[in-house]
Amino acid sequence: MTARSGTLFQGLSAFPLTPADEAGTVDTDALGRLVDRLAEAGVASIGVLGSTGGFMYLTRDERRRAVTAAVEAASGRTPVIAGIGALRTDEAVLLARDAEAAGADALLLAPVSYIPLTEDEVFEHVAWIAAATDLPICLYDNPTTTHFTFSPALFARLAKVKTVGGAKIPLPAEGSVAVQLEELTRETGGAIQFGYSGDPRLVTAGLGGAKAFYSALAGALPKEVMSLHTASVSGDAARANEMNARFEPMWNLFRKHGGFRVIPEIAQILGLCSARPPRPVLRLPDAERTKVGAALAQLEGL
Amino acid sequence: MTARSGTLFQGLSAFPLTPADEAGTVDTDALGRLVDRLAEAGVASIGVLGSTGGFMYLTRDERRRAVTAAVEAASGRTPVIAGIGALRTDEAVLLARDAEAAGADALLLAPVSYIPLTEDEVFEHVAWIAAATDLPICLYDNPTTTHFTFSPALFARLAKVKTVGGAKIPLPAEGSVAVQLEELTRETGGAIQFGYSGDPRLVTAGLGGAKAFYSALAGALPKEVMSLHTASVSGDAARANEMNARFEPMWNLFRKHGGFRVIPEIAQILGLCSARPPRPVLRLPDAERTKVGAALAQLEGL
Repeated sequence: MTARSGTLFQGLSAFPLTPADEAGTVDTDALGRLVDRLAEAGVASIGVLGSTGGFMYLTRDERRRAVTAAVEAASGRTPVIAGIGALRTDEAVLLARDAEAAGADALLLAPVSYIPLTEDEVFEHVAWIAAATDLPICLYDNPTTTHFTFSPALFARLAKVKTVGGAKIPLPAEGSVAVQLEELTRETGGAIQFGYSGDPRLVTAGLGGAKAFYSALAGALPKEVMSLHTASVSGDAARANEMNARFEPMWNLFRKHGGFRVIPEIAQILGLCSARPPRPVLRLPDAERTKVGAALAQLEGL
Repeated sequence: MTARSGTLFQGLSAFPLTPADEAGTVDTDALGRLVDRLAEAGVASIGVLGSTGGFMYLTRDERRRAVTAAVEAASGRTPVIAGIGALRTDEAVLLARDAEAAGADALLLAPVSYIPLTEDEVFEHVAWIAAATDLPICLYDNPTTTHFTFSPALFARLAKVKTVGGAKIPLPAEGSVAVQLEELTRETGGAIQFGYSGDPRLVTAGLGGAKAFYSALAGALPKEVMSLHTASVSGDAARANEMNARFEPMWNLFRKHGGFRVIPEIAQILGLCSARPPRPVLRLPDAERTKVGAALAQLEGL
């Protein structure tokens, strides 16, 4: 059995930040440069407006500008997956249509919530959005930010929605990736291609047999993360773990502050763009920024 | 020591739903009627655009229309507290200014989050908003929806922000309300008036000495909930508990579905207004709606 969207939801997907000013106006030139860099590096896909891309902090207009700029910059070299999560179903439908009109190749749908949602509500939400667009949909299971957790039974229901082809899920807190992948693939009849996110455990996912990884760090450091990803999916655990040791200072910063606060500092240090997280999220304090520089130095020459 | 906002954040505060159509356009006439009913019943304050009022599902324009309509309908009889929570600090500042211009008496500030927030970030967020308006602020500690929990130390820091005068907090999962109130009042030097929300435990809060309760059910059933509140703050535990037994079927529905799904059904049954939760949140299934009717019947004659 193969996922219905072919290889779209396979390989290393890189999620850049969305450079924007303090008022939330996207710097489309800077975003275009980030996307071009990812396409040049040869990542499998580019995820614009993911959590790292701050989708929940941008208006519909700014999100449309961001997707348009990303699609133009990728210029057919690399598929673009656009985040369309919104608290209201009708808003997510509009965002899906905007992304389709802008030329995105697929949609990333996070069931963000304020009032905690039931499984029936998330099912209907996804089905409603799927009915409004022809694009393949990747479900985004990220309980830390959406406060919703997909059960295997819900994935099985959603596998019957024709355009649902992928899912971006967190690694299991306990237990093996391989066992989880086998269970979820069985439950969904192979219709959904499951991939992981949560950069500090990229190697665990790769060694566990994950065919897809959705990486925030790859949005800023595509070459380095591609090397790590290649090592992890090659099955050479010794090599992957050896390489991963060099990423450990960076993973510690991710664990401590979240990638959302660390990645703008990386972009700043590397001169990729000037970017700060949107308030209320604050920049890292000076001492932590110094550690980001040191963590980057560990990756030189990869 | 007394809270700096006097009695504004004391007594029973009633939170009506915000009647709106499927596209999120507020029915200001219907909202005005709900507010008038609350003012007539004599609640201590009216909380427009709380969680029950669906603030996170409405645009800035619709929220401005809702606050304006609520202030007009209250017409000086009852203070109006307006919810101004937003993911972006600059958006919350605009909402605060809108509410002030519309004539609201106070602001209810929920630190809603997508990226989990740190205590420093929430402190700065509140201080930034407080600097933009003269209105008293009630902090909204509701981890179930905002995914942020205020620590006593953070309340102590925020007590130094001049206009922060109230806090709407959940009952402690374990331990006593009286002990919690004493600790928080000590930590904040009496500058913040703490009140509770979470309707099924209204009686526990009242018997525990809470001076304020923020009630969703009171937004639809002010007379009945005022009776229960009066009994609970009178200290007559036997009477309060006896009365509370009649509310128990309603509290069970709140626990099972959340007030956000139950209250529109109450409003519909009572003919107060036609209201449905915004998608993705779904109406209760028929069998559960029947139970809402039965739970209402238990309260007749209160």
